[in-house]
Amino acid sequence: MIEAGIIGGTGYTGLELIRLLLMHPKVKISVVTSRRHKGKKVSDVNPHLFPFIELEYEDVDTKEIADRSDIVFAAVPHGSAMKYVPELMERGTRVIDLSADYRLKREEYERVYKREHTDREERDAVYGLTELHPEVADAALVANPGCYPTGAILAVAPLVNEGLVKQVIFDSKSGISGGGVEPSEVSHFPNLAENIIPYEVTTHRHVAEMRRELPVPISFTPHVIPSIRGILTTAHVFLNEGELKTYEELDSIYRQFYEGKRFIRLRKGMPSLSSVRGTNFCDIRFEIEKDGDRIVVISTIDNLVKGGSGQAIQNMNLMLGLDEGEGLMFPGLAP
Amino acid sequence: MIEAGIIGGTGYTGLELIRLLLMHPKVKISVVTSRRHKGKKVSDVNPHLFPFIELEYEDVDTKEIADRSDIVFAAVPHGSAMKYVPELMERGTRVIDLSADYRLKREEYERVYKREHTDREERDAVYGLTELHPEVADAALVANPGCYPTGAILAVAPLVNEGLVKQVIFDSKSGISGGGVEPSEVSHFPNLAENIIPYEVTTHRHVAEMRRELPVPISFTPHVIPSIRGILTTAHVFLNEGELKTYEELDSIYRQFYEGKRFIRLRKGMPSLSSVRGTNFCDIRFEIEKDGDRIVVISTIDNLVKGGSGQAIQNMNLMLGLDEGEGLMFPGLAP
Amino acid sequence: MIEAGIIGGTGYTGLELIRLLLMHPKVKISVVTSRRHKGKKVSDVNPHLFPFIELEYEDVDTKEIADRSDIVFAAVPHGSAMKYVPELMERGTRVIDLSADYRLKREEYERVYKREHTDREERDAVYGLTELHPEVADAALVANPGCYPTGAILAVAPLVNEGLVKQVIFDSKSGISGGGVEPSEVSHFPNLAENIIPYEVTTHRHVAEMRRELPVPISFTPHVIPSIRGILTTAHVFLNEGELKTYEELDSIYRQFYEGKRFIRLRKGMPSLSSVRGTNFCDIRFEIEKDGDRIVVISTIDNLVKGGSGQAIQNMNLMLGLDEGEGLMFPGLAP
Amino acid sequence: MIEAGIIGGTGYTGLELIRLLLMHPKVKISVVTSRRHKGKKVSDVNPHLFPFIELEYEDVDTKEIADRSDIVFAAVPHGSAMKYVPELMERGTRVIDLSADYRLKREEYERVYKREHTDREERDAVYGLTELHPEVADAALVANPGCYPTGAILAVAPLVNEGLVKQVIFDSKSGISGGGVEPSEVSHFPNLAENIIPYEVTTHRHVAEMRRELPVPISFTPHVIPSIRGILTTAHVFLNEGELKTYEELDSIYRQFYEGKRFIRLRKGMPSLSSVRGTNFCDIRFEIEKDGDRIVVISTIDNLVKGGSGQAIQNMNLMLGLDEGEGLMFPGLAP
Repeated sequence: MIEAGIIGGTGYTGLELIRLLLMHPKVKISVVTSRRHKGKKVSDVNPHLFPFIELEYEDVDTKEIADRSDIVFAAVPHGSAMKYVPELMERGTRVIDLSADYRLKREEYERVYKREHTDREERDAVYGLTELHPEVADAALVANPGCYPTGAILAVAPLVNEGLVKQVIFDSKSGISGGGVEPSEVSHFPNLAENIIPYEVTTHRHVAEMRRELPVPISFTPHVIPSIRGILTTAHVFLNEGELKTYEELDSIYRQFYEGKRFIRLRKGMPSLSSVRGTNFCDIRFEIEKDGDRIVVISTIDNLVKGGSGQAIQNMNLMLGLDEGEGLMFPGLAP
Repeated sequence: MIEAGIIGGTGYTGLELIRLLLMHPKVKISVVTSRRHKGKKVSDVNPHLFPFIELEYEDVDTKEIADRSDIVFAAVPHGSAMKYVPELMERGTRVIDLSADYRLKREEYERVYKREHTDREERDAVYGLTELHPEVADAALVANPGCYPTGAILAVAPLVNEGLVKQVIFDSKSGISGGGVEPSEVSHFPNLAENIIPYEVTTHRHVAEMRRELPVPISFTPHVIPSIRGILTTAHVFLNEGELKTYEELDSIYRQFYEGKRFIRLRKGMPSLSSVRGTNFCDIRFEIEKDGDRIVVISTIDNLVKGGSGQAIQNMNLMLGLDEGEGLMFPGLAP
Repeated sequence: MIEAGIIGGTGYTGLELIRLLLMHPKVKISVVTSRRHKGKKVSDVNPHLFPFIELEYEDVDTKEIADRSDIVFAAVPHGSAMKYVPELMERGTRVIDLSADYRLKREEYERVYKREHTDREERDAVYGLTELHPEVADAALVANPGCYPTGAILAVAPLVNEGLVKQVIFDSKSGISGGGVEPSEVSHFPNLAENIIPYEVTTHRHVAEMRRELPVPISFTPHVIPSIRGILTTAHVFLNEGELKTYEELDSIYRQFYEGKRFIRLRKGMPSLSSVRGTNFCDIRFEIEKDGDRIVVISTIDNLVKGGSGQAIQNMNLMLGLDEGEGLMFPGLAP
Repeated sequence: MIEAGIIGGTGYTGLELIRLLLMHPKVKISVVTSRRHKGKKVSDVNPHLFPFIELEYEDVDTKEIADRSDIVFAAVPHGSAMKYVPELMERGTRVIDLSADYRLKREEYERVYKREHTDREERDAVYGLTELHPEVADAALVANPGCYPTGAILAVAPLVNEGLVKQVIFDSKSGISGGGVEPSEVSHFPNLAENIIPYEVTTHRHVAEMRRELPVPISFTPHVIPSIRGILTTAHVFLNEGELKTYEELDSIYRQFYEGKRFIRLRKGMPSLSSVRGTNFCDIRFEIEKDGDRIVVISTIDNLVKGGSGQAIQNMNLMLGLDEGEGLMFPGLAP
């Protein structure tokens, strides 16, 4: 069995890594770290994981994590991952970083995240949106994408790749689990239930990732909806003049672009959050505005799976030479 | 007391008219019609209205409704209102129609709603978005706006009026009560909870009203969210070249445009559905994208009040020469 | 106008007092205190209250509150009210305390709440469940009931009063707003949505109030449901042997007991939280188990209104010699 | 591979059978019937199942189902299963019936379900609550339990078995998926959200199953909560006089009773619906009322899995001589 370590095993991302790896036939978890819960059984702190995991949370140094793991997932907040990655890589351990720390070039990172990047080496991280970057297979360091960019980029990449697109406005709606495990004003039930909360409507940092992958004018506005999991992105795509296409032409563009990508499901019916709940799928549907130059593309993902930990495992599979879908092929928990 | 009749008193719009009129100090309900519930007490069918209304549902003809009412609300589905309006108006009764039947010119109505308009007279209905059409005061027939257009148009009218706007994309999120009182696939709890459902993403008919009021290129995509009441509209506004403005300039444009309009609340903080819950307010906030030509305007309304029955009563107040806010000044039911 | 002061105007209870008093025709708010928000406009901190209240939060001493108010609401946490009440009463100001501090005899309070009662005087507070204690009219100090006891006691008081009851098990389900305005593990949306959370299943302190008012064996278990407002109580009532009654007999007992109590609505249909949403009503329905000795009584209230601030205003009305329903007669916000 | 047929593959129970069997390593689905969707791909009608199932819905006769299957699940409504079971059994096919048709003795069935039982043979169905009835292993016909009885019976069986119990009141709260796939008044989002709906509060038919398994006085009241999946049952257990036990004694009774039953998780912390979401677990916790004779036992299940299709597969595993947990060991989808 391949041994995988998890740095940061108490947030939703870390917990979802554990949940998914427990069902993986070829990988076992070697170590899960938590300062706060050090010494406690993982399944005592997280009863949904009983009796699947025997491990206790540990508070061990990076060196030991590296020694005990063939591959390591960093599931810590932005700004923390950069403290672990250098030492892990020096010891030859491959790393999948679920934070934003290695998604952007240093300069852009520091501008967007408004903090110094303390890793003095410019590492050649691969942006781990697996469908667009099969080169993750050979990467020593994978920068796992943000949740919003995953659903947004996958929705329109075929059109952008074809050179059709003049401009895209992404209007995204996310379940609150994207905000993390800590209670907050936004996650307070009386504030979120019967509501929908736009935030950072012109300033969300994830737009930098979208622009990195999609070389067209991009606007992005996120909202939190009263749901636990899932992101639905509405992409308002405006085409270059003279680029109007038929449904069949666009459909063919999408099918060719995503041929063989088993986690992309091109849909005739409207994508829903329940069809992707608990899964690594990204469901996509487009509709052409009659007499218009707008295409509306809808994508749905589970923000904690395809938008986070499932994506990370998909990357891991490629890095380890395993089948891309190993441990990830589950139907959605609908209803 | 002024006597108001309600044609169609069992849908959410009709019920909300009743709820609001029961708190109106100068108007009383003269008649509420329902074929299905004829003879039953309104408060038996709708227990939240007990003991406020003594009336029974009646199934009476248009003539009698006209005779017993100073003003009549038509709260029946599209295509039905046009059957009542001609006779009501012939008898000199003023009408506020909450359906779409008189919101568009005949030709456009028939094109958009794909049905014949059977009222052979082209009536001069005033579009009852009170803040933009004070001439409702003198109208014999008011076409009460659709729920989506209300929130959308109010969000950007000041900018459009100023000639600043190149293009607007409205991405709207509505509570499910907009879909009506009848259970459906979309309103089925397991389908809507933990989900968000886009629909008619390029074809929703309300865009015709928006284009009628806003002479700029408009795109519109609606979604249903797992909430009962409320519409939050995210307006992605792109300005004409060279029209970049400071926050203060735009703020001033909004304040002047809506001066004295007490149901418009210009907000510094993010509008929420709870602040407008049960009220006739429209909360509006804008944010300028840094270095960009996009302004994101967020508006929130209660779809059943400002987006329907409250708006209708606001129109009624003007028509009757009453204070605009009579019977409508309630704080939002937050949380 | 009568002047009412509010000590503690930032919690849900205080805010609901404000919301309701703003609609009261004969009372105005004289002062609202908050240390944290001192100097801020109440409607800036709570946008749903704009433009209804001009006041700023103040941090003034008890003496000044007393001087500026004819009556004072204490809407502070348990253990805090007892710091304000003595001085208010010494100055002759009548007080309605929404905390638990004066609901029980000193000894029982100290046992149940596990804290010392620092008010050295044993004050003769009236338990402000208005329907059962009309003597609030003459009270100098009213101890406003807890939210759970309100719905529970009202559900079965007529049966207990008649001497029919052997035993009652109250199984209550509350909206999360009862837990207050501060985010917590329980109010964290991912924890509460798609869930129901029992708590203090054999130890909730409110049972002491129920036992005070209902001299029969009482059990009580509360749960939090994924709703904002409302408490539905399921009372499993077991009758004394030989006390089986017909529906008509019980119905008559209920009707006589609650005759003239306008906030009690005896229902044939199932009570719902939406029918009482935002209102001071308590809806009650009972059903007799066939061939059995069990009666199931269902009651619903809005925990913040009849279960808190509305009840307090109902008490205030009696204390001031006003009509009991003044400022409180609104239909429920359904749907 | 063992071949399993499913009669009725469009309801939530049938769909959950499909979802779970698709993950079963030793069983494949041979046929799924639906009259309405005959000829359509199962994954076209139910997009969450794509690309896991290639089958089309079929409308074939019982004989053919029997011929093509080693074991058959009847996932049709009460009253329908009895039309299929006789012929299936005559052909020697083993059957797991998820309806109520074989859970009770004929006479009691006809009394409780108020319909004639048309299967003229009194078949010796085993009540498929696996933990209590290991004899399902040898059964030709298994009557899979109702969702409410599963959570209720498991909660208190150890106490009843020990002879400690005088009386139990089950107060259950269920997600709405128990009500089925068809939209209804109760499942209409505006009716259920922000609400909790008691129903059949003294008359629910499932009490007959509880009484069959638990020979003590039982009361039962169900409620629907605004959640999709899950049942939480609050069991108010009153002990026989003189039977007060310590926590340790009761804990020992529970542990012995459920020793080796891997789907029962005895909990120290409060059971939640999220910990069992999508799983076949039943989580149980008890608390002794201080100085009292009441024990409150809380149990949680996923109504569609342990309360339905997962239970059925657990039974199938035993019937086929497979490991009890085959295809069923998944962590809960939390959050």
